[in-house]
Amino acid sequence: MIPGRCVVDVMRGDVVESSHQVHVAVCHAEEGLVASAGNPAHHSFVRSAIKMFQVLPFVEAGGMGHFQLTSEELALCTASHSGELFHVAAARSILAKAKVGEGALACGPHLPLHEPTAQAMIAAGETPGRIHNNCSGKHAGMIACCVQHQWVTNGYQRPAHPLQQRIRSTLARWMRIDADDMEVGVDGCGLPTFAVALDAVAEGCARFAAVATQDGSGPATIVQAMTSHPEFVAGTNRLDTDLMSMTKGRLFAKVGAEGFYCAGVPTMKLGIALKAEDGAKRAAEPALLAVLHLLDALTTDELSRMAKYAEPEILNTRQEVVGRVRTQLEF
Amino acid sequence: MIPGRCVVDVMRGDVVESSHQVHVAVCHAEEGLVASAGNPAHHSFVRSAIKMFQVLPFVEAGGMGHFQLTSEELALCTASHSGELFHVAAARSILAKAKVGEGALACGPHLPLHEPTAQAMIAAGETPGRIHNNCSGKHAGMIACCVQHQWVTNGYQRPAHPLQQRIRSTLARWMRIDADDMEVGVDGCGLPTFAVALDAVAEGCARFAAVATQDGSGPATIVQAMTSHPEFVAGTNRLDTDLMSMTKGRLFAKVGAEGFYCAGVPTMKLGIALKAEDGAKRAAEPALLAVLHLLDALTTDELSRMAKYAEPEILNTRQEVVGRVRTQLEF
Repeated sequence: MIPGRCVVDVMRGDVVESSHQVHVAVCHAEEGLVASAGNPAHHSFVRSAIKMFQVLPFVEAGGMGHFQLTSEELALCTASHSGELFHVAAARSILAKAKVGEGALACGPHLPLHEPTAQAMIAAGETPGRIHNNCSGKHAGMIACCVQHQWVTNGYQRPAHPLQQRIRSTLARWMRIDADDMEVGVDGCGLPTFAVALDAVAEGCARFAAVATQDGSGPATIVQAMTSHPEFVAGTNRLDTDLMSMTKGRLFAKVGAEGFYCAGVPTMKLGIALKAEDGAKRAAEPALLAVLHLLDALTTDELSRMAKYAEPEILNTRQEVVGRVRTQLEF
Repeated sequence: MIPGRCVVDVMRGDVVESSHQVHVAVCHAEEGLVASAGNPAHHSFVRSAIKMFQVLPFVEAGGMGHFQLTSEELALCTASHSGELFHVAAARSILAKAKVGEGALACGPHLPLHEPTAQAMIAAGETPGRIHNNCSGKHAGMIACCVQHQWVTNGYQRPAHPLQQRIRSTLARWMRIDADDMEVGVDGCGLPTFAVALDAVAEGCARFAAVATQDGSGPATIVQAMTSHPEFVAGTNRLDTDLMSMTKGRLFAKVGAEGFYCAGVPTMKLGIALKAEDGAKRAAEPALLAVLHLLDALTTDELSRMAKYAEPEILNTRQEVVGRVRTQLEF
């Protein structure tokens, strides 16, 4: 296979001001790597882009039924949410159903990603709590999983905890790698995160997508929750939410920190993993859309409806359009 | 000359999570290019990194004496300031001395870069004005320059205005390039910005640094203002301020948006221009310090005193150290 390339340029006027290299791997559930750009074996931390795998052990163990969780609450378990009021309420609801207090959350506090919500909190003199962490839904789900299995909740974020061990082996199984080969780092929210080659992540996503076509499977339940309630997966004016709202269940997408993205197209049995080499979100978002379009998973019309993410304008402080972002992609 | 390299890695644990390529040109005032990394002819917008050249026509025309500007106010004219109270007060003072209102500023409003100041404004229900723009000092100086020359102040930010024409020819003269060859873009604050090769910018900085050793020259007045009042050039917990405070007049440094940096070492007649290819400030700052250290413009002890910029720790939301930034530089 001839190596492709994916370059995201930030233009000011007609001049390239800054440039991002993006590595892309696209796998088919049965055929393996079917398309790539840059280095499809690029090795980096998967961060929040694999939250659908992190919640899988909980779903497969019947956690949804055990706690009477709603589909919205499951979507929040896969979220890097914006800390809007409905996100925080759903995270609190999961904890209440598990009969655990907010103090059990291991993630640290930060202001909501949703700017108006953050400013309203500052104006009201409120201090953000752990519940506002963009990962609080995932953490609430993990705590519920511990409660269900009668595992100690204290320290659930530690690599040696049975929950994290189960998540690690789940990831390894879906990505067909040796669990002992995955290098471990500490994620922004305190959980273990793993360094994996993009093509292995893409293969995991492809198999997850393929199994998601089988009603009643864990992946089907998770993908249905994400695509039916995409506002719980990210939030207002966020790519994952707007993309999954538009495509109505045809695909799932999940952002991770430092320019990582995972996506899957169940009916095509395709999985995608990409990473902006320098960690820039402003490169990962247009790259994901360009990849989906080139794979015919998005129509040209749909791509143009996502223009504010695919080809965002650069505004200056005078609100003048002074440039734009463009993506060059070849497989 | 064998091409060198400058790579800034963002490590999570022991794994490289993200990587930045940085292009560097180092020139001597008489000898031209003396060291480089990446592509020393890399072409990009100089943005705010050349503010000392933008204020030079004003200083050389006697603007300081004409308006009885203080050295602190001149430093603010070269600043990308943090919008702290003393910055805003100094910008207002320049405008008052020029007998012009804040409405004359062409830069757009944004919240102060200094987070506590921004949060205090939000908490008090205050809306940011043009005076809070990080470039308001430069703009105030430009307006004063127009008043002095009896040029119309309205539209002073337009490329065809006599002030911008004079700044353009000043830049071209110091950088030894043809003014007509410089591609123009619109900067974040609405002023023209120019796309120039790094080695030309570095040569301009080297000549500026060399002339700054001659007391009474325009560059000497500007460098003395920047290095005597570095808190006016950036602000609290900003690299330019802390670096120039520590080095007590031995060098000047000025950040620009999108990972651009200029610096000069007068006694060594050296000028430095660098650009993180992807526009990342988190790469440009450690790269600048590594370059200054390799040039012996910073001692190892001084580099270690700048560790929070040279090798910053990565904290997660739990305030745990989960990684760090490292720079690999070879000329």
